[in-house]
Amino acid sequence: MITIEHNDRGSAARTGRLKLPHGDVATPAFMPVGTAATVKGMYPGQVADLGYSLILANTYHLLLRPGIDTVYSLGGIRGFSTWKGNILTDSGGYQVFSLSGLRKIEETGVYFRSHIDGSPHTLTPELVVQAQARLGSDIQMVLDVCTPPDIPLQDARDAMDRTTRWLKRAIAEWQGTRDWYPGQLFSIVQGNFYPDLRREHAETLAEMETPGIAIGGLSVGETYSQFADILAHTAQYLPADRPRYVMGIGTPDFILAAVANGIDMFDCVLPTRVARNGSIFTRHGLVSLKRAAHRGSDQPIDPAGDTAPDLQGFSRGYLHHLFNAREMLGPMIATRHNLYFMQQFMNEVRASIRKDRFREYAAGFMEKFATGEQR
Amino acid sequence: MITIEHNDRGSAARTGRLKLPHGDVATPAFMPVGTAATVKGMYPGQVADLGYSLILANTYHLLLRPGIDTVYSLGGIRGFSTWKGNILTDSGGYQVFSLSGLRKIEETGVYFRSHIDGSPHTLTPELVVQAQARLGSDIQMVLDVCTPPDIPLQDARDAMDRTTRWLKRAIAEWQGTRDWYPGQLFSIVQGNFYPDLRREHAETLAEMETPGIAIGGLSVGETYSQFADILAHTAQYLPADRPRYVMGIGTPDFILAAVANGIDMFDCVLPTRVARNGSIFTRHGLVSLKRAAHRGSDQPIDPAGDTAPDLQGFSRGYLHHLFNAREMLGPMIATRHNLYFMQQFMNEVRASIRKDRFREYAAGFMEKFATGEQR
Ligand SMILES: [Zn+2]
Ligand SMILES: [Zn+2]
Repeated sequence: MITIEHNDRGSAARTGRLKLPHGDVATPAFMPVGTAATVKGMYPGQVADLGYSLILANTYHLLLRPGIDTVYSLGGIRGFSTWKGNILTDSGGYQVFSLSGLRKIEETGVYFRSHIDGSPHTLTPELVVQAQARLGSDIQMVLDVCTPPDIPLQDARDAMDRTTRWLKRAIAEWQGTRDWYPGQLFSIVQGNFYPDLRREHAETLAEMETPGIAIGGLSVGETYSQFADILAHTAQYLPADRPRYVMGIGTPDFILAAVANGIDMFDCVLPTRVARNGSIFTRHGLVSLKRAAHRGSDQPIDPAGDTAPDLQGFSRGYLHHLFNAREMLGPMIATRHNLYFMQQFMNEVRASIRKDRFREYAAGFMEKFATGEQR
Repeated sequence: MITIEHNDRGSAARTGRLKLPHGDVATPAFMPVGTAATVKGMYPGQVADLGYSLILANTYHLLLRPGIDTVYSLGGIRGFSTWKGNILTDSGGYQVFSLSGLRKIEETGVYFRSHIDGSPHTLTPELVVQAQARLGSDIQMVLDVCTPPDIPLQDARDAMDRTTRWLKRAIAEWQGTRDWYPGQLFSIVQGNFYPDLRREHAETLAEMETPGIAIGGLSVGETYSQFADILAHTAQYLPADRPRYVMGIGTPDFILAAVANGIDMFDCVLPTRVARNGSIFTRHGLVSLKRAAHRGSDQPIDPAGDTAPDLQGFSRGYLHHLFNAREMLGPMIATRHNLYFMQQFMNEVRASIRKDRFREYAAGFMEKFATGEQR
């Protein structure tokens, strides 16, 4: 499923191509998030024009609204939304485990009530495979048992072991779809922040036949160094010939740490969420366009004019006005700019790996990015 | 300023071209509204791609936020927003007269407080000419005295006479801008719903040297027949060689009545406002996409697939979902569709006039439009 084209000499970073049913994806790849079958504020064609060929959608949200059957009857997420590229869906587990008061976890699966209308729903490993297949997912995730940080060792082991049992059921279900559904299934390494559990689970999953493996349970509020340590520790036990995915990370520092450890894919709502709040990514860090300093500014969105072709004429002064007046065009432009930025960033990451210069690139990028704007 | 290319044989309808500093405009023309220097939910290029070359912006809103000087320093509305076509601005009078508790009207002008932050502002006929010139307006409107319907005759006459005195001051101020500002000035016929006053004011304005004349004080809650009567009565006294504009109308029945009486231009927030609320224009009237009937529907936005090229793949079921989930893409698509619809409608209106078949076209259009969807 993944072809590695080059391994960086100075780190575990690698670059290659994912072969997926709806086009190739250059790795390492950042995936924009389109929770409800739409990347907020963007036309599907605008997302593709930025060079993205793989986006994420959330099974939990689509299950509740408009419902899996509705999406299926309109051709899956692709037919439904007109997005033509690949889609990765999560299992819904992460969201359901966060619904503390409203859900019950048993060995068979998770039973919960909708946060929207209170209606009862069930997620089992098998149902989740079928739901994602009906959504037309190109990469689907196994239902796993998510745990908060700082739980006792035995609880972390129990969750990890159940995740493994659920994975076996999911693989059997997924294998039963092979004659009509071309999507791939990824497993998820759990084990909380216990290094021994992480190693054990990574080695267990490496022996099971999923086309890819994700690292779950990270980006849950831990510090950068806790994240980087457990990630590096876990990644070393993953097989080199399968794609590796870290879920829910999207700031440049976390992405660079993931790439340095040989991770191929990541997703995060951050670039699009902060955009809706008026913040744009630049080489010198995040810039909040709502700040009074941008009122009347004739500066371009990016100080170097480096933004999507259609956005080059817009000034920070105009964006400040749009956010101030709560005009839709503000979030629309900022979202598109941030996704442009992330794609440029990943292009440079991939190029630096091909030249065996990833460490230098990462250090140079972070030095500028952490400095802030000096004007 | 206007070249009339054809007069319909069966009505007072006429078709032609407005010559404006930023491109020609085919008439009769519908103008989309971009209140705060943005047509809500649309990129400027998307508005132009639909064939619009003249949009409206509101002086009142821009005066309060971000301020005329800010827009001016960034190149006027065009430089500020990147819109490349023509702009018509209103005087701000209509909005200020609606601020009942917050404004004082004197012979010199109108004194009011911002509805946003309470800051004090002044509109005089002269200041309003300068403000619109600084906004870079291609067609600017005189400050007039707006009155609610059902006021006594003497009050209507006083407002009309003051409007005339303000117009003389505005013309003098506008003539003083001729060496640096290429925009045109339109006068506004007042006279409330009193036919004698309307005739008197129309004849007065016809003798004054503004490049165009608007009919104000309509679309203030009156019935269709009150509107059509006073419009027909007023329009007959307007000179044939100047453009005629009716402010604030936008439903097809009101537009057709205006066109039948020789009106060349109109604007309305309705097509864009209802779009944000989930309603789309079709040949069979307005359709609310929020209705449960559209859930899971694979029907295209328009039953005949007649929408903007980029929108043809979207289903009503997807739009229903987007509105249900309060996703920005819903208003974005519906707005673009409604402005596409209005442009197609106006294309047909213009074509029917050229063929001396406007009455037949209007009757046929309204028969379908009033029927509603039959499916
Ligand atoms: Zn999870
Ligand atoms: Zn007015």
